[in-house]
Amino acid sequence: MEIAVLLFEDFETLDVFGPVEIFGRLDGLYTLRFFSLPGGAIRNKDGVAILTEELSAIPDRVDIFLIPGGLGTRKEVNNEPLIDKIRAISGISAYVLTVCTGSALLAKTGLLDGKGATTNKRAFDWVITNGPNVLWNKKARWVVDGKFYTSSGVSAGMDMALGFLGDRHGVDVARKVAVGIEYNWTEDKDNDTFQAS
Amino acid sequence: MEIAVLLFEDFETLDVFGPVEIFGRLDGLYTLRFFSLPGGAIRNKDGVAILTEELSAIPDRVDIFLIPGGLGTRKEVNNEPLIDKIRAISGISAYVLTVCTGSALLAKTGLLDGKGATTNKRAFDWVITNGPNVLWNKKARWVVDGKFYTSSGVSAGMDMALGFLGDRHGVDVARKVAVGIEYNWTEDKDNDTFQAS
Repeated sequence: MEIAVLLFEDFETLDVFGPVEIFGRLDGLYTLRFFSLPGGAIRNKDGVAILTEELSAIPDRVDIFLIPGGLGTRKEVNNEPLIDKIRAISGISAYVLTVCTGSALLAKTGLLDGKGATTNKRAFDWVITNGPNVLWNKKARWVVDGKFYTSSGVSAGMDMALGFLGDRHGVDVARKVAVGIEYNWTEDKDNDTFQAS
Repeated sequence: MEIAVLLFEDFETLDVFGPVEIFGRLDGLYTLRFFSLPGGAIRNKDGVAILTEELSAIPDRVDIFLIPGGLGTRKEVNNEPLIDKIRAISGISAYVLTVCTGSALLAKTGLLDGKGATTNKRAFDWVITNGPNVLWNKKARWVVDGKFYTSSGVSAGMDMALGFLGDRHGVDVARKVAVGIEYNWTEDKDNDTFQAS
């Protein structure tokens, strides 16, 4: 299965590479490709420079579209060409996964309207302004609504990715991946230790 | 403080980017630079291609030298020019941190001889062949011996990075970073859920 990861300047490092680590653990079952609007090297505040393909090179059908968060989302929610692309790619994706404030980008497309979703509990008040008609959940570690998976902040993306594997391949496969990376998985998506008050 | 991160083909994604996320959280206190023996784009099995500088461009003094693990270590333990560089850079580094099988590379230099260290519990038997005189610890999540920090597998690198911040800046700073990334930190370095039998 093909995973398309969206990158933009000042993406959050772990939002991307936590799920990438987890999907990469299934011995080639998932193929990961990295995309950005301009293509080329995309950088963030941690000194990471990762090579990407142009979003226009994305395949006609994507199995999983992964949208990270990070400081860059504050700017990108107002980047109409990017939001238009996110809307179009989400339409051709079997599943759309967002981590942290990545849900603000997806909310901005309107595709989450009337659907349950969550986001970083420490950026909650800002994120929800980007999707007033989304059913925002303050307590969940991650939320599944149809093909949309949205997670809480940063590390929660790993819990969600494992949850996604559990939903597709059974919980034992997900647990095996968690053990393989020696990660203490929060299996209960409905209870976030870091929930907003 | 300057952190030099070592990369090589088929590094483990989260070994690198878990600690990078954590050090990047201290608002510019740590500056991260990525190095490899040849320089240029370094790739791994997850489709990640990261831009690096040549190891020869490393500064005269490094505050933290971070060595990840991954499948690539099986090849790199026999890469003498790389092991020589790791020995030299470790000598000019105030602290040397390894994640997962990265400890095999450091052990190969001889610098861990007579010192306590740990590694991935699922690759334990292989790693210890690279350092027969190292005092390998089967129970620890991570081990501190002087300037050397060595962690267990993959996710344990995040716990160790938080532990390092705790040792330098106090546990409250480390806890604040953990909450910021909504990560359930395993604070006790001596007890690994995934310990080898």
